[in-house]
Amino acid sequence: MYSSKPATNVGRMILRRALQCRRKRSSSAVPSDAKVVNDVRHVRGEYGRVTDADVRHFRSLLGEPNVLTGAQNVGPYNVDYMKHVLGESELVLRPKTTKDVSDILKYCNDRSIAVCPQAGKTGISSGGVALFDEVVLSVERMNKIINFDPVSGVLVCEAGCVLESLMKHVNGHGYMMPLDLGSKGSCQIGGNVSTNAGGIRVIRYGTLQGCVLGLEAVTADGTILDCLNTMRKDNTGYHLKHLFIGSEGTLGIVTKVAILCPTLPKHVNVAFIGLDSYDKVLKLFSIARAEFGETLSSFELMDNTAVTFVESKLHLVCPIANVHPFYVLIELASSQPTISQNMENVLEKALGDSVISDATMTDQMSSIQKIWKVRETVIEALLKLGYMYSFDISLPLSRFYEIVELTREKLKDIEDVKAVCGFGHIGDGNLHLNVVTSKYDEELARMIEPFIYGWTSKHRGSVSAEHGIGLSKTKYLEHTKSGSAVDLMRSLKNTMDPKRILNPYKVIPTVGASNPGSKK
Amino acid sequence: MYSSKPATNVGRMILRRALQCRRKRSSSAVPSDAKVVNDVRHVRGEYGRVTDADVRHFRSLLGEPNVLTGAQNVGPYNVDYMKHVLGESELVLRPKTTKDVSDILKYCNDRSIAVCPQAGKTGISSGGVALFDEVVLSVERMNKIINFDPVSGVLVCEAGCVLESLMKHVNGHGYMMPLDLGSKGSCQIGGNVSTNAGGIRVIRYGTLQGCVLGLEAVTADGTILDCLNTMRKDNTGYHLKHLFIGSEGTLGIVTKVAILCPTLPKHVNVAFIGLDSYDKVLKLFSIARAEFGETLSSFELMDNTAVTFVESKLHLVCPIANVHPFYVLIELASSQPTISQNMENVLEKALGDSVISDATMTDQMSSIQKIWKVRETVIEALLKLGYMYSFDISLPLSRFYEIVELTREKLKDIEDVKAVCGFGHIGDGNLHLNVVTSKYDEELARMIEPFIYGWTSKHRGSVSAEHGIGLSKTKYLEHTKSGSAVDLMRSLKNTMDPKRILNPYKVIPTVGASNPGSKK
Repeated sequence: MYSSKPATNVGRMILRRALQCRRKRSSSAVPSDAKVVNDVRHVRGEYGRVTDADVRHFRSLLGEPNVLTGAQNVGPYNVDYMKHVLGESELVLRPKTTKDVSDILKYCNDRSIAVCPQAGKTGISSGGVALFDEVVLSVERMNKIINFDPVSGVLVCEAGCVLESLMKHVNGHGYMMPLDLGSKGSCQIGGNVSTNAGGIRVIRYGTLQGCVLGLEAVTADGTILDCLNTMRKDNTGYHLKHLFIGSEGTLGIVTKVAILCPTLPKHVNVAFIGLDSYDKVLKLFSIARAEFGETLSSFELMDNTAVTFVESKLHLVCPIANVHPFYVLIELASSQPTISQNMENVLEKALGDSVISDATMTDQMSSIQKIWKVRETVIEALLKLGYMYSFDISLPLSRFYEIVELTREKLKDIEDVKAVCGFGHIGDGNLHLNVVTSKYDEELARMIEPFIYGWTSKHRGSVSAEHGIGLSKTKYLEHTKSGSAVDLMRSLKNTMDPKRILNPYKVIPTVGASNPGSKK
Repeated sequence: MYSSKPATNVGRMILRRALQCRRKRSSSAVPSDAKVVNDVRHVRGEYGRVTDADVRHFRSLLGEPNVLTGAQNVGPYNVDYMKHVLGESELVLRPKTTKDVSDILKYCNDRSIAVCPQAGKTGISSGGVALFDEVVLSVERMNKIINFDPVSGVLVCEAGCVLESLMKHVNGHGYMMPLDLGSKGSCQIGGNVSTNAGGIRVIRYGTLQGCVLGLEAVTADGTILDCLNTMRKDNTGYHLKHLFIGSEGTLGIVTKVAILCPTLPKHVNVAFIGLDSYDKVLKLFSIARAEFGETLSSFELMDNTAVTFVESKLHLVCPIANVHPFYVLIELASSQPTISQNMENVLEKALGDSVISDATMTDQMSSIQKIWKVRETVIEALLKLGYMYSFDISLPLSRFYEIVELTREKLKDIEDVKAVCGFGHIGDGNLHLNVVTSKYDEELARMIEPFIYGWTSKHRGSVSAEHGIGLSKTKYLEHTKSGSAVDLMRSLKNTMDPKRILNPYKVIPTVGASNPGSKK
């Protein structure tokens, strides 16, 4: 969960890191046009350079106000949420229709001009900003809700719709969006789909791979691919939509989506629970799955470190006495009014059986919001300490917390390490592991990353649960994907985008990248 | 819903049709090696022919008992459930391990020998049997349950596991399989995944695209692709598993799957309801979605024709007086005991508001089974009348029943038409439309198919909701898929299987097929 506006001090901190990653003109070992991001050296591909004639062409196509040039206009499109990378794009295009997108891509493909598709720029893997002088294609003006069918619950809309506006729209019909993210106020649905964004509702509603019924996308040569199915069942040939869900704009640009929305629950109940070991957390999770079944909508873990810093840095009050090594937040949501009684019975028994040590529960919205705030502000609290090395990994539940303890042990003698903290979505096996220091240190990053990603790989976890590979994790792709899987990814890329104009340098390094960590 | 054992009289009826589709040696218009299936003329591709040396090679690889030759041994593998096609395969291979599959495919690819992957053969689009002399690769011996994790609910197993045996296994741990099919007693999970099989639980648990967390597949050249992720969240690069879910073995052979299983519900309630118009069915569906929310696990429609034939041909009793034009079966399943009261309140109000005309409900398992039987035996009842032209289509709910009425009107003067009947999964927009006659008539088929599929296409429905394209629907693929989508399917096929050895003639016609109905 990341808020849509970065805290200013962190912004500055990370910007410094971005500046370190700028083009290294002075080093003799690095070519003059190389750029290093997370130890991977990228060289600009042999793409066409944008000329005045190109700009005139795009102006005639989109109208003057939708073709941005000049540092001041283009600047905001060159920086994303994490500010790890400063893009060098000199041209931003703002299409309004799928045909615009098609015309742009056809032209760029013919001229071999590289394109960086962009939506809300809220991902943390820097997949949504240019690295060199790629043309930025922003879908922000494609923000029309095309249809919502209140019988089937199917929403059809354009890629640039902001998630929160979609939520409001379907809420009005008694439905909800199947995903919820901290960045909902600015993230756009096309970006959500392109990155297969996760969030706090995956345990209940699954990933976007299950919720997206259809989509329309434009491929590299400008072909409009109409797979905008709105049926729940369609088994006619290959399920092409999945090529675009989670491929981060490298195989095509998503222009429209059809999403199946669940109905709004009538009753909600939230509990905040203290436990004295991770084993007991797992035991409680088993009980919760069995007893709450389909009504379980969240099962979130925080360790003592997380809650302690929320208390001390943000002056929020832990809903129960803060004396437990682990805390769990359980949310039930249902059409049935009995969930409160069910929660009470289950927690009372768990207390009697010494599975849990303490608990509080509520069905009052104001109290529910207060409890959620403790969980949602963990990152904000940690960032008050300085810089944060943040890992978004999936692990088998049996090993979920072990890596936090191992990391803590490994870093125990490093003075600048202020905290090693674990929290996350137990229900999804998704751990947010954070190492907090006063400042960014490249040496420390080089020590932590291979350790954590190596361990994750060894236990068949995922090095990116929610946030994709983007530009910053290409180095670790093969820690989760097998060599043959990466080979197949390359084949697909070559087939669908032979000139590699779509979001180059991202997901799989394509042109001129050198990665000392890669097995390839 | 199809039972795993075809009724004998139907078997004979359809077999007659299969014989009509045999190689037409005598016709001068058709090449001597052509075979016509559903008006599409297929010519054997230029594949290698299996030699004695090949057979010896496979025997050394798999052991004598797992290499079947001779009509008697191979025969059962050349006919599938619908018996629309008689395969001419002369060799069946029964690998035990993924390495066996890899070795077989590598050898066949080198020798350009065509391969037909086969699981339980319960699909109705003839995707699982050979057309000419393809080597049948049956996964039936790969039937090991590798692991079930009772904490996360993730099942990992081999492709040849029979669905019902998996159900029993996970039931024992308090979980259920997310899919349920009439053919569960013989269908195999690798086939379910390869065809993205649907069934009666899609409204609640979605399709396999959402439930399959990972899989292992072997591609045409024998490459083992390990995407056997067991995490709910994994956003590292392209989601390659989806290339194999629903592509019917044309891009690779699924060897292992990881599936997320939901917990077993504690309480179940079923209602059988009579309504006097299709508009009221839609109104009831809106009410059900809003009032029952996440507890709604089935919403099935039958028209009066369906129920009347179940009564008259199978001597089952309709749970309410059979005087209504439409019937709906609603099932609720939940961890909460209040669903019965909830059902009663909602139905009482609907009765008061004249949305429904009559209803009965029960939470007793024996009564639940009796009610389900009325819904599940519709096909069996219709088949008692003779031959059945069966359509498995998805439609927007607003047009769901219109096509039944239009078809009835169109065929009203054709003497041999005994019934036009509609039933299906309203919750999934999946209509089973059936035209029943005393015998198969090619002319009638040529009249009905383009009419129904054309209408479906016009309303952006799907010509195959559950059962895939296989061999029998290639002609209608472009009624649902756009031209650019089919082009992309062809590109993917060429990239992943350049010699086209995997399940040729299926899904997209590849070698030597001529289709008068195609736009290409």
